[in-house]
Amino acid sequence: MTLKIGVIGTGMIGRDHTRRIQQVLAGAEVVALSDVNLASAESVRADLAPNAKLYQTGEELIAAPEVDAVLVTSWGATHEPYVLAAVAAGKPVFCEKPLATTAEGARRIVEAEVAHGKRLVQVGFMRRYDAGYVALKDAVQQHTGAPILVHAAHRNPAVPEAYVTPMAIHDTLIHEIDVFRWLLDDDYVSARVLYPRNAARSHGKLRDPQVVVLETKKGVLIDVEIFVNCHYGYDIQCEVVGEDGTARLPEPMAIDMRLGAKRQSRILTDWKDRFVASYDVELQDFIAAAAKGSATGPSAWDGYAAAVTSDACVQAQESAGQAVAIELPARPALYE
Amino acid sequence: MTLKIGVIGTGMIGRDHTRRIQQVLAGAEVVALSDVNLASAESVRADLAPNAKLYQTGEELIAAPEVDAVLVTSWGATHEPYVLAAVAAGKPVFCEKPLATTAEGARRIVEAEVAHGKRLVQVGFMRRYDAGYVALKDAVQQHTGAPILVHAAHRNPAVPEAYVTPMAIHDTLIHEIDVFRWLLDDDYVSARVLYPRNAARSHGKLRDPQVVVLETKKGVLIDVEIFVNCHYGYDIQCEVVGEDGTARLPEPMAIDMRLGAKRQSRILTDWKDRFVASYDVELQDFIAAAAKGSATGPSAWDGYAAAVTSDACVQAQESAGQAVAIELPARPALYE
Amino acid sequence: MTLKIGVIGTGMIGRDHTRRIQQVLAGAEVVALSDVNLASAESVRADLAPNAKLYQTGEELIAAPEVDAVLVTSWGATHEPYVLAAVAAGKPVFCEKPLATTAEGARRIVEAEVAHGKRLVQVGFMRRYDAGYVALKDAVQQHTGAPILVHAAHRNPAVPEAYVTPMAIHDTLIHEIDVFRWLLDDDYVSARVLYPRNAARSHGKLRDPQVVVLETKKGVLIDVEIFVNCHYGYDIQCEVVGEDGTARLPEPMAIDMRLGAKRQSRILTDWKDRFVASYDVELQDFIAAAAKGSATGPSAWDGYAAAVTSDACVQAQESAGQAVAIELPARPALYE
Amino acid sequence: MTLKIGVIGTGMIGRDHTRRIQQVLAGAEVVALSDVNLASAESVRADLAPNAKLYQTGEELIAAPEVDAVLVTSWGATHEPYVLAAVAAGKPVFCEKPLATTAEGARRIVEAEVAHGKRLVQVGFMRRYDAGYVALKDAVQQHTGAPILVHAAHRNPAVPEAYVTPMAIHDTLIHEIDVFRWLLDDDYVSARVLYPRNAARSHGKLRDPQVVVLETKKGVLIDVEIFVNCHYGYDIQCEVVGEDGTARLPEPMAIDMRLGAKRQSRILTDWKDRFVASYDVELQDFIAAAAKGSATGPSAWDGYAAAVTSDACVQAQESAGQAVAIELPARPALYE
Repeated sequence: MTLKIGVIGTGMIGRDHTRRIQQVLAGAEVVALSDVNLASAESVRADLAPNAKLYQTGEELIAAPEVDAVLVTSWGATHEPYVLAAVAAGKPVFCEKPLATTAEGARRIVEAEVAHGKRLVQVGFMRRYDAGYVALKDAVQQHTGAPILVHAAHRNPAVPEAYVTPMAIHDTLIHEIDVFRWLLDDDYVSARVLYPRNAARSHGKLRDPQVVVLETKKGVLIDVEIFVNCHYGYDIQCEVVGEDGTARLPEPMAIDMRLGAKRQSRILTDWKDRFVASYDVELQDFIAAAAKGSATGPSAWDGYAAAVTSDACVQAQESAGQAVAIELPARPALYE
Repeated sequence: MTLKIGVIGTGMIGRDHTRRIQQVLAGAEVVALSDVNLASAESVRADLAPNAKLYQTGEELIAAPEVDAVLVTSWGATHEPYVLAAVAAGKPVFCEKPLATTAEGARRIVEAEVAHGKRLVQVGFMRRYDAGYVALKDAVQQHTGAPILVHAAHRNPAVPEAYVTPMAIHDTLIHEIDVFRWLLDDDYVSARVLYPRNAARSHGKLRDPQVVVLETKKGVLIDVEIFVNCHYGYDIQCEVVGEDGTARLPEPMAIDMRLGAKRQSRILTDWKDRFVASYDVELQDFIAAAAKGSATGPSAWDGYAAAVTSDACVQAQESAGQAVAIELPARPALYE
Repeated sequence: MTLKIGVIGTGMIGRDHTRRIQQVLAGAEVVALSDVNLASAESVRADLAPNAKLYQTGEELIAAPEVDAVLVTSWGATHEPYVLAAVAAGKPVFCEKPLATTAEGARRIVEAEVAHGKRLVQVGFMRRYDAGYVALKDAVQQHTGAPILVHAAHRNPAVPEAYVTPMAIHDTLIHEIDVFRWLLDDDYVSARVLYPRNAARSHGKLRDPQVVVLETKKGVLIDVEIFVNCHYGYDIQCEVVGEDGTARLPEPMAIDMRLGAKRQSRILTDWKDRFVASYDVELQDFIAAAAKGSATGPSAWDGYAAAVTSDACVQAQESAGQAVAIELPARPALYE
Repeated sequence: MTLKIGVIGTGMIGRDHTRRIQQVLAGAEVVALSDVNLASAESVRADLAPNAKLYQTGEELIAAPEVDAVLVTSWGATHEPYVLAAVAAGKPVFCEKPLATTAEGARRIVEAEVAHGKRLVQVGFMRRYDAGYVALKDAVQQHTGAPILVHAAHRNPAVPEAYVTPMAIHDTLIHEIDVFRWLLDDDYVSARVLYPRNAARSHGKLRDPQVVVLETKKGVLIDVEIFVNCHYGYDIQCEVVGEDGTARLPEPMAIDMRLGAKRQSRILTDWKDRFVASYDVELQDFIAAAAKGSATGPSAWDGYAAAVTSDACVQAQESAGQAVAIELPARPALYE
């Protein structure tokens, strides 16, 4: 009962997921590959999935009878049509973020899935599968009492020149946007962005750092520092303050050393190392659900909510500290 | 060359400072006591300073020839006239916070001291003398690069019913207001207050917790959580984020224990224990400067700046998330 | 190219490894099962490996042509003959500890494997695959300078009545014995056991705690506290002291909480949770090597060295603090 | 009621205690000074105690009528006669360690004090006054259950060439010897010394590191690593393992920083910084008791017990891992 998966998009992440399915996880194999650059697909086939068939287009791959489930790891702008095609074909589909490049696009996927009547889509928000966030959620539910405040930080050592202010939302905060909805089991109602002076390592088209303040329906106030030129490392911080106490996201494992008059431990510098274990877990979760013809984990609705929130945050970046309202339509029953 | 000190106000803090001078610190003795309740002064005399003389009024005590320096630990509303009288008498004076109950009152003290031409006033902002903050300031100056952000929290386990929203500024935030000006060597330009839902342990006249956001002249953005019904303990947190890295205020010393499936260490619950060592240091500092006829440490100008900032924060509490400007006149040369 | 595995012994650990191969790891499947209690094997087949064939005896399973590689997870006394049979058949074999119940038995396996001329045996010392120990070894090799001392502790909350003094070596210290040889890349030359008074929760046939002192060829002195009635949790500690500094084994991930006047984080109480992730890694390692017809990781030689060391430690338990020599024959070239 | 103190020996520590009494502590003043090098005494007088009288000999100082209490901070070999003289004069005396250079000498002081019938002697074991050890003792008494094991380390970054093996006991372990007797409220019955290979930074006349194993009357087993060329810092570690759990000595306060891909905090390198605050507390304790004509804190008996234990440890250094018995006569009632 091995799940037969087709992968659309064989760039870095598509190749890595193929390796994961072929060499790490149980219960699935990659049987089809497609990429706009066919040589790339051929290379992945040769290296990792010698029995896979190559398809000229994602649409053909989705339609192929041997394909049970689909991974969409292609360029962002193509996500929406491929996911819609998979839903139309009734096949479970795992889609890397963003689900679509616009909130409207994400909403079309939600509507298609609701029309289909059963969940088929999982969005690649891997932090929900991180052991630290899972333990934090458990601590919040078991120990801290109802959450009131969240203090968070998302720090990168540096970003390329092409990284400009709105990318702090779309590429960086997007992970906090999703994971805090899940952590708090809540929705956002407003966003606000506050700026200190620009960091010396930033540049003219990037306000960095920035502090995004989100409010939720249940009245939780969240502040997230985004600092993508923090220099010292890749560092994700999260503290939840509840009625009875607080809980913090654990630091990544590191060896405590005493050397040269310093107690010291390593801080990661590459984001790819921070949640590396979560990719395995999220994909194993996809395989398990897809084997039953459905999907679990971050849904199309979550992808839509993230898109709406991102849009509000970007608007808030230009609103001089004013709060921007975040409104979602009623949540379809499929996603309760 | 023992410094002869007169203490005005012999309530809890006046008694405690008398004990400190008589039993802990070198170089001074309490020779005069005064209180609106003379029995209280008599009791302190009997217990701690048998050679001290009692005075009916603070004014008489200040005028007494045997008094070299004055401690004002009376009811807040009386601070201004006593400090003004001490300045008029040319005697060094240590005044517990607030320096005055209004910014205007604090300014009158500044003007009197400037007219006198030499520093005589030290305000009782003891956190500047805490070994943790001193080490943090050193870390910021030596290691983190120029500060850009400060994340802070000031948590009390509980407050009495009489504690209402503005007291979160006047009684609680006041310490952060002063210590961050000192820590950053900077001044504030605006304040903003944001609220999550009210904590279940709060009440109708107290918004709790609240997040105060301060901006400084140099462009540092500071967020301070004030949570006076946090239940779990008295907890002071401060993280500075600079160009090159971050530094945190140390936790109070506590024994790391492993018991009953928990790694655990005590958290303080009484604010009086948190900065207890700082009182000794601040008063020793006062004694050293007063012995030379002057004052160092937190100045009347610092007291005035704190009063102006507090007023802005209280106004911000009623301003629905809008920033309130903080403006100070030019700093007199005496305080450079 | 799926590796076809036969599992001998379907108790708790055999069942768990079967689940791992069938549901978690890539590249292998369980095709044969055997147990002295055939109903147990049948139950594992039904639950986890419906396509597996049942065998009356381990010998038949080893001989079965569809079996590429063997897992020996049966009762300890049967390990030696099954491993010898697998080696005779030229099939890679993973054997849970102990490799044999006597040092002589382990040595017979070493001799058989040496005669075969290629590694086929992996012993189930899973700690070598723990991310914490791997990072510790890296820290020692990269940062601390050459090791001089190791301070370690192995604590269990409680043990059953049947647990007596020598089991502190055979069942408990055995893990440190192997992992420190690997961590230090060294061999032992002597063992010594020191006792404090007996813990109140221990009993007449169990000296608990005890401190085992091991010396290595390179001159490292290791002290290991074994305390199997420590009450508070399952806790594994290890600090290496080198020429230039120290490094410590990390604590298991835990959420730092502040609750009820205590900073606190959970300590595990069940040993099965402590190294749970390592079982996946060690078995994936076995699958990878077995797919190429060989074995890596902890070898038969390591199993033999552990057996010889254990024997010396048990003798040292009865030697009133005297050192007992540990001597190994020359290491066969196969294990360099 | 200022206590009038005479200081014998005005080297580094005598000067520092004089500064402490004159400028830091309440309730005492230095009225007499003496040193074998009169110019040194004169310099301390000029800098710190202008009203003090100089004496040619310690004996004259002790006999001086204006001297209420005596500090012995002279060369070790002179401690015994000065302390005996002070006891004969019935004057409280604070004596830096060692109380005497031989156990017999310490015993003569004990006998003199017992004959006097009241405690007069405090030995300068300052660790008992360290806030960390005090908190650790409280944790052991309140939380861990009765102690069974102690794991400790005493590490120096480096020592001069003149430091040879026995000094690891007399100059280094001596602090642990005293503080553990106090911490555990117990006495030693045996000592054993174990050696790893010599550290590369050590030399031919110094075995370094070494592990001293002490056993107590109550059955506690203590291991202390002494490593005086550890290179990385001055580091004092202590973990107590009790029936119900463990407790550790806190680290000195340090700022947790994140810089250059490292989480880091400073480790002290100079032993003088580690227990600096304890000197104030021990001397304040001496002043308080001496003002009442007596002494508290570490007693002559404690000094004697430390001397006997040190002798056994030095013997154990030459005993190839054998335990050396430690025997004390019955404790005089004065020291119960």
